[in-house]
Amino acid sequence: MRSHYCGDVRSEHIDETVTLCGWVDRRRDHGGVIFLDMRDREGVVQVVFDPDTQEHFERANKVRSEYVLKVTGRVRARFEGTVNPGMKTGEIEVLGKELEILNVAATPPFPLEDKNVGEDIRLKYRYVDLRRQEMQDKLRLRAKITSAIRSSLEGNGFLDIETPILTRATPEGARDYLVPSRTHEGKFFALPQSPQLFKQLLMVSGFDRYYQIAKCFRDEDLRADRQPEFTQIDIEASFVDQESIMSLTEEMICDLFKSVLGVELGSIPRMPFAEAMARFGSDKPDMRIPLELVDVDDLMRQVDFKVFNGPASDPKGRVAALKVPGGASISRKLIDGYTKFVSIYGAKGLAWIKVNELAKGIEGLQSPIIKFMPDEIVLQLMERLDVADGDIVFFGADKAKIVNEALGALRCKLGEDLDLYTAEWAPLWVVDFPMFEETDSGWTSLHHPFTAPACSPEELIANPGEALSIAYDMVLNGCELGGGSIRIHDQEMQKTVFKVLGISDEEAEEKFGFLLDALQFGAPPHGGLAFGLDRIVMLMTGSESIRDVIAFPKTQSAGCLMTKAPGEVSSQQLRELSIKLREEEKAGE
Amino acid sequence: MRSHYCGDVRSEHIDETVTLCGWVDRRRDHGGVIFLDMRDREGVVQVVFDPDTQEHFERANKVRSEYVLKVTGRVRARFEGTVNPGMKTGEIEVLGKELEILNVAATPPFPLEDKNVGEDIRLKYRYVDLRRQEMQDKLRLRAKITSAIRSSLEGNGFLDIETPILTRATPEGARDYLVPSRTHEGKFFALPQSPQLFKQLLMVSGFDRYYQIAKCFRDEDLRADRQPEFTQIDIEASFVDQESIMSLTEEMICDLFKSVLGVELGSIPRMPFAEAMARFGSDKPDMRIPLELVDVDDLMRQVDFKVFNGPASDPKGRVAALKVPGGASISRKLIDGYTKFVSIYGAKGLAWIKVNELAKGIEGLQSPIIKFMPDEIVLQLMERLDVADGDIVFFGADKAKIVNEALGALRCKLGEDLDLYTAEWAPLWVVDFPMFEETDSGWTSLHHPFTAPACSPEELIANPGEALSIAYDMVLNGCELGGGSIRIHDQEMQKTVFKVLGISDEEAEEKFGFLLDALQFGAPPHGGLAFGLDRIVMLMTGSESIRDVIAFPKTQSAGCLMTKAPGEVSSQQLRELSIKLREEEKAGE
Repeated sequence: MRSHYCGDVRSEHIDETVTLCGWVDRRRDHGGVIFLDMRDREGVVQVVFDPDTQEHFERANKVRSEYVLKVTGRVRARFEGTVNPGMKTGEIEVLGKELEILNVAATPPFPLEDKNVGEDIRLKYRYVDLRRQEMQDKLRLRAKITSAIRSSLEGNGFLDIETPILTRATPEGARDYLVPSRTHEGKFFALPQSPQLFKQLLMVSGFDRYYQIAKCFRDEDLRADRQPEFTQIDIEASFVDQESIMSLTEEMICDLFKSVLGVELGSIPRMPFAEAMARFGSDKPDMRIPLELVDVDDLMRQVDFKVFNGPASDPKGRVAALKVPGGASISRKLIDGYTKFVSIYGAKGLAWIKVNELAKGIEGLQSPIIKFMPDEIVLQLMERLDVADGDIVFFGADKAKIVNEALGALRCKLGEDLDLYTAEWAPLWVVDFPMFEETDSGWTSLHHPFTAPACSPEELIANPGEALSIAYDMVLNGCELGGGSIRIHDQEMQKTVFKVLGISDEEAEEKFGFLLDALQFGAPPHGGLAFGLDRIVMLMTGSESIRDVIAFPKTQSAGCLMTKAPGEVSSQQLRELSIKLREEEKAGE
Repeated sequence: MRSHYCGDVRSEHIDETVTLCGWVDRRRDHGGVIFLDMRDREGVVQVVFDPDTQEHFERANKVRSEYVLKVTGRVRARFEGTVNPGMKTGEIEVLGKELEILNVAATPPFPLEDKNVGEDIRLKYRYVDLRRQEMQDKLRLRAKITSAIRSSLEGNGFLDIETPILTRATPEGARDYLVPSRTHEGKFFALPQSPQLFKQLLMVSGFDRYYQIAKCFRDEDLRADRQPEFTQIDIEASFVDQESIMSLTEEMICDLFKSVLGVELGSIPRMPFAEAMARFGSDKPDMRIPLELVDVDDLMRQVDFKVFNGPASDPKGRVAALKVPGGASISRKLIDGYTKFVSIYGAKGLAWIKVNELAKGIEGLQSPIIKFMPDEIVLQLMERLDVADGDIVFFGADKAKIVNEALGALRCKLGEDLDLYTAEWAPLWVVDFPMFEETDSGWTSLHHPFTAPACSPEELIANPGEALSIAYDMVLNGCELGGGSIRIHDQEMQKTVFKVLGISDEEAEEKFGFLLDALQFGAPPHGGLAFGLDRIVMLMTGSESIRDVIAFPKTQSAGCLMTKAPGEVSSQQLRELSIKLREEEKAGE
């Protein structure tokens, strides 16, 4: 229908006759002549209609924003003084000869150029929202990223193999979406939270290197950066160790940033989990922020002040300090705000000391808490923290988990509020994770139950809390980009892990019988990794929300405002699936 | 862990020390020396262990089929007379120095080399089945095909854009899989039967060229070549007509066959739907078979024989003949078999005439039916069919639908039984489909309700049965590879189609409100096509079943024998989803 994209017309086409198709971005009437900015996915071009084109001019006069047009005309140089260097097509314009209206358009629900449209209305009219340049750019970049990842993996011998979407429920922590079966009455499929077991079975099958850009599903409360369905770059390889998987995927991510953004990430540093928690209170520390937590338990055990002494003396407690250079200027009101902020993470308060004039000793400090502590300890604290005039020090004292989460989050918030970032991109590998986490109901896997431990089955049983796993997470700017592990390929080891997790033989057989079977028929050593594609695209496009990099996302309550999914279904449909609604039951009682 | 793949070791590596990882394909003990055939995804290599390697020899002596090994050794030329030209690695062998057993293996549930293993056992132990060379080759070819299609489409400016899996039910003919929502009590998502509406909305958004290799779902009884989840190469473009979409996708398929199989499909011929039905009784005729249906209604109207006269005189009836050159040798017993075969399609019998000696006139024919017809008509029939001695002619006489299905299927069966194929690959475009099909409950869409008609809204309303659509199917060897259409981009036309289909304004608004809305905000002319990837891979790999080209397929009853999906779920899970089983209700009564 067309000879060129609107956005592709250039000076080299001057004097050529072109046919363009696209949308009316803007229409102006200037000196008896109609100027149309015509838009397609490649950009905007200016089209001019003179009255001597008669009915074509009449039509041009009639068109409104978002009408769909087909225009034929001659490309000419713009007159001097009207050249627009801000536009790719700004050196030329098209002198229209023929205009056909392919479709009319009602006034859009919001102007495309308005940057302050509420998200609800954007999502309801997503097809209009997606016309905005910003959204076009984001989804095009997403396609480019996907394509670059595929090339990179295929170039390294990884085979794209599809795994099922209709599968069996797995207890991977979060909740499954269930799908009632028509042919197997009373039974349900589950949508996969990840292709984990299938990719391990593909390794048992000898495919050696597998990848898939896979849809995964998790039915949980949605945080800002979660969607019920999300896309994973899923990778698995055989006869590999942690080192080779990490270097292979690090290369992939570095190549991606280089080719798509022109950014050199450099060699990605590594940090053990324990160090990350100690220094940053997080297993995905934002390394752009030059603030660190410092342990002060030993000092705080020496004070009577219960707030500090209690957690410092508790084996599961922690007292940590977070020094902010130059932070003494933070107002009392802002500190109140931060106190409220850390309370989200369970912190009962936020102690602080401002360093006004260190030379004055204790007199030079300002704080609501130093009166509860011996001066000597306070001064030792200041020395350990190596403070300078104008600094502020925040304290967290509670169960270690709470202190880490609260100060870890405060550290990020301060980094953002005070714009402390020292780099645009700060990637990190976190390694040496614990195998298990202790909960009220026993041990649970920190990753998943198929992760290989770095010790023998005997050591695992003897001391589950000390066992480390061969697992690794890649973190970028405080976001987890992906994570993986070497998997268990030995049936005995797998059974041992199930045992620590309190999974009985019957339960293991019922849920993972096929995996245990597979492990006995010659499973190779294998491992892999999965990256969150949505998260990667969000970071690479500088988006605030994951919803901005998904064409048709769900809201935070897991609904679609455009299609109104989920929707009601007929009782006939439910009957065929052998299920009924609970409310039906109530109504029938 | 390794230096080379087993299957990649060649003469050029002679005298090099290599480290290989893989499975024991075979172990032989010959003259006090152990020969191991070691296998990985690239192939098999022979490894030899001499007793002087001590503990390594001992281990080699101990290994069994499917053990997983790591072997280090020196590559050497095979001795004269032991070179195996049938193996890629047949010129060399590896003299083992070290052997490490990475994993043991129980005796496999079936020997990999056994070609007659039942499908149930193959599916239950799919991870073993997938080790077979044939399955490895098929899934590798599938990955290659997918990759080639992506390159081709991306090279043509198509953007890979993901559409939702959790979406709203659409009435596209077959049945939806439903997913109960936790956050929206009593409501359900549906898994998409295709991304149809989303891709149309992406065109409204101006993405111009979209593609996706998309998982689709259909909850219906499974025929041999259907799966509850299947993969579609989904394509849509704006500002295109039928011609440009057809030539673009034809080029893609031809390039695919060229690059992957080295096959030249050539230019793909086109045939109107009506002609395909008349000549082949099918809208997806297998063009490899040189047999055609011939209409003989006019002659049969002249006979008294009710079996022929009835359908010939019925406006919805058809009497057709199918001549099989040389078919007079088909035995009476085989004819009885064919009679039974056509009865599957509703045919009440299968009349036939064998031509023994045409020169003898009516005496030279053999048939149970000619006695019911005037000799003159029979001879006119023979003349029209241009028969020769040794031919057989079959007849179908019934409602046109039954005759087409029965003789269409018989034509394919004869083609296969008598090996009449004239080509290996015979592609065809079928075009000019009717818009609607008449059913007892009114008009239904032959494709889907978003297909553009080739006429005006007025003509559509006036004579729905005559209206043709701008739709096109690509057929290969009697299989539908894919199909598509130009879509309706005009709101009024879309409403008219809904009207003919008996969809009320309320129902249209409820189900497709967002599409109708979108059409009024400046929808461009657009169209597209979807290919069945599984079907394409099945044809290109010469597989008997679609299950052979899917890593983890479902059985015909839509279950997975390996994971035992679908499975039971707890009543706690159902309670959270606000649903219950119907049988629970019964038990509670």
